[in-house]
Amino acid sequence: MKKILAVGSLAFDSVSTPAGRAEHVLGGSVNYFSLSASFFTKLQVVGVVGEDFPKDHLSFMEGRGIDVSGVQVVPGKTFHWTGEYGKDLNEAITLSTQLNVFEHFQPELPQDYRNAEYLFLGNIAPELQYSVLDQVKNPKIVALDSMNFWITGRKDELLKVLPRINLLTINEGEAKLLAGETNVFSAVDKILAMGPQVVVVKRGEYGAFVSVGGEIFSCPAVPVRRVVDPTGAGDTFAGGMIGYLASHDASLTPAAMRQALLTGTVMASFTVEDFSIRRLQRLEKTEIEHRRQELLRIITP
Amino acid sequence: MKKILAVGSLAFDSVSTPAGRAEHVLGGSVNYFSLSASFFTKLQVVGVVGEDFPKDHLSFMEGRGIDVSGVQVVPGKTFHWTGEYGKDLNEAITLSTQLNVFEHFQPELPQDYRNAEYLFLGNIAPELQYSVLDQVKNPKIVALDSMNFWITGRKDELLKVLPRINLLTINEGEAKLLAGETNVFSAVDKILAMGPQVVVVKRGEYGAFVSVGGEIFSCPAVPVRRVVDPTGAGDTFAGGMIGYLASHDASLTPAAMRQALLTGTVMASFTVEDFSIRRLQRLEKTEIEHRRQELLRIITP
Repeated sequence: MKKILAVGSLAFDSVSTPAGRAEHVLGGSVNYFSLSASFFTKLQVVGVVGEDFPKDHLSFMEGRGIDVSGVQVVPGKTFHWTGEYGKDLNEAITLSTQLNVFEHFQPELPQDYRNAEYLFLGNIAPELQYSVLDQVKNPKIVALDSMNFWITGRKDELLKVLPRINLLTINEGEAKLLAGETNVFSAVDKILAMGPQVVVVKRGEYGAFVSVGGEIFSCPAVPVRRVVDPTGAGDTFAGGMIGYLASHDASLTPAAMRQALLTGTVMASFTVEDFSIRRLQRLEKTEIEHRRQELLRIITP
Repeated sequence: MKKILAVGSLAFDSVSTPAGRAEHVLGGSVNYFSLSASFFTKLQVVGVVGEDFPKDHLSFMEGRGIDVSGVQVVPGKTFHWTGEYGKDLNEAITLSTQLNVFEHFQPELPQDYRNAEYLFLGNIAPELQYSVLDQVKNPKIVALDSMNFWITGRKDELLKVLPRINLLTINEGEAKLLAGETNVFSAVDKILAMGPQVVVVKRGEYGAFVSVGGEIFSCPAVPVRRVVDPTGAGDTFAGGMIGYLASHDASLTPAAMRQALLTGTVMASFTVEDFSIRRLQRLEKTEIEHRRQELLRIITP
């Protein structure tokens, strides 16, 4: 079992979906990621919050085996994202992004973080992802998530990071955007040529697939009859996936990636059942195993 | 091994896709369906064509074990559909529908068709599907395909047919439309209450799932890097599915439906590789088994 070093945002979200509305609730990529991964292994988290961020949430994370000594608490307000989902729950519409303390964030790794073997670079500016990479000595597996905002606005910086990572997680539409392709499988072929050895494509309610070592493994999502809020599903998915890999000290073999994708799919199915990180906060380990069995029944011919 | 009785359209299509354009080529629901199913069992086909329909295509069908004595050849022109696909290959835009001889089509089953055990009612007016059902004595399994045109325009007639069938195949968007639900799994639950014991939801490039006996089996599509023309993929899928069931004299058990869905998924992946029925016309049995193995590798964790 290995620890994961995870970098990303800790945030407040205000979200409106067809199921309702949640104001100023806990969110952020590394929040979802680390809570999800904490069911499988220990974590070290790097991020920044303002003085308004609840200390008891940082304590809650610590209680879950998440080292938050790399989270900077600085004067000012925490990053605040406001968004909404229409009937198409696969796509969020951003209404406002208040970067606040995130605007001048410079990731600074504590000494005992720098030997990390499993590294997750959450969806932040590519140059920050790059600076984290420079501080880690000899990582075994580097996973990175990105989004259309960086693909459109900072493509050159992103293209500089990709050769230094092993695994990219990306939404279907963003994979096509990054590669300039309309066919998602051709897009993935092109992205593999940009650096990463493994590409995982997230397809929302349709599941996900991974391309690794010339093989594709595709897994549908767990059927959820009432999707309350899809926010954080992608990071929860990545948390399950990297959590599986680190807990097994696994390399990026096709066999390991199949199990990792399955685990990510299971974890994401919980997050969408409630607003914010609520479902993850009350999740029990036995529920994970139960849903894993359910998913296996759904995909086995 | 049982025969299948299949009713639907034989047509000319003019189709434009990002990959190119095909004018006045062979199409129609029962054309795709029967060619696909003919790899697994024998068929009897009911339909109508005009005097302009190529006789050598009817001979080609006969050579594939498809009895076309139930195809009426009448004065006038064959049904002609014109449509196009944009970047979203999951949705066809209909540019024109010339019903021609199809407008006054009255399905009339030859005597030796009336003992059919496996029946496929392709996407035609619900009252015609109903009239075919009245002519078949004691079918074991009745499968039906429908579309938004009938759901919107002839919902009452469609709701009268549904209690008389066993298996419905339907697109994802059309399932939501029929049930008045935004969640596809809730939509299927409602449709099951309308009559059929089994509902198969087609999700285009994302694959398909079946709800049967309280279980869901979900299967992604075979990755295709160059989709030339999606026309007929749904009927090809149904042909593989019902072809599997009839060739095994199978009931609608969850186990049989899992294999049937897999077979439909394999068959559909060929049709999209070329315009019209061209890929099915040159398809070899060994290619089917090869692709089935490929699909199993893609879905097995």
